[in-house]
Amino acid sequence: MSVEEARALLRSARLARLGCVAGDEPYVVPVNYAFDDECAISHSLPGLKITAMRERPRVCLQVDAVKDQFNWKSVLAYGTFEEIVNTDERARALSLLLSLFPRLTPVETLIAEDANAPAPIVYRIRIDRVTGIREG
Amino acid sequence: MSVEEARALLRSARLARLGCVAGDEPYVVPVNYAFDDECAISHSLPGLKITAMRERPRVCLQVDAVKDQFNWKSVLAYGTFEEIVNTDERARALSLLLSLFPRLTPVETLIAEDANAPAPIVYRIRIDRVTGIREG
Repeated sequence: MSVEEARALLRSARLARLGCVAGDEPYVVPVNYAFDDECAISHSLPGLKITAMRERPRVCLQVDAVKDQFNWKSVLAYGTFEEIVNTDERARALSLLLSLFPRLTPVETLIAEDANAPAPIVYRIRIDRVTGIREG
Repeated sequence: MSVEEARALLRSARLARLGCVAGDEPYVVPVNYAFDDECAISHSLPGLKITAMRERPRVCLQVDAVKDQFNWKSVLAYGTFEEIVNTDERARALSLLLSLFPRLTPVETLIAEDANAPAPIVYRIRIDRVTGIREG
């Protein structure tokens, strides 16, 4: 698969599997994201993946389109985790995410209604390498 | 999600994302597998994931059922990579895989027709910890 085709899948997809290393073990979890051609942007509550990425910022995003066992493509984007803490940047990132994922999830709704809930972490993964494989 | 529900998804699914560590980076790739309640069994040509798992046998399998942003579940099964080299065990594992995935993929067909092609590696991941999260 060409790098262009791989990047196109990365741009069009909204759901990726984030791979990171937690302790000595790999950790993989589905995430929604936006890709602006340099970075994947996402957000999360504090938790295992945030702790893992803060400790070991080299991560990957795997995105695929699987029709069946014989027709599939998979893209792997490697990059570095960066927390977005600057107020303006954070607002822009959240606004981009909100434009793609306009509804709050039930968990986020609970948080929005609870002033004591932890603030979500907004982060980017600065992509520096993209590879793709396909069959069919 | 209960451990029983997580294990049920692991049993019923056929496609997982395998997470391993290659060098200092996480590596994630889709794999077809069979789960016999103790181990996930799969096979692969020699390549990056096999090299990575031989060097760092702690891996994970992530399996999910995503309806939409608000209705999804994801299971993470941690385990240890073991290559199946014993002739009888290898035959049993391949027979199980063939019963679930009866057709050869185009790549495998090419290999079957080429006596000089490398032999596929048959392996199990001995699962020792299963966690699950869900929304909706």
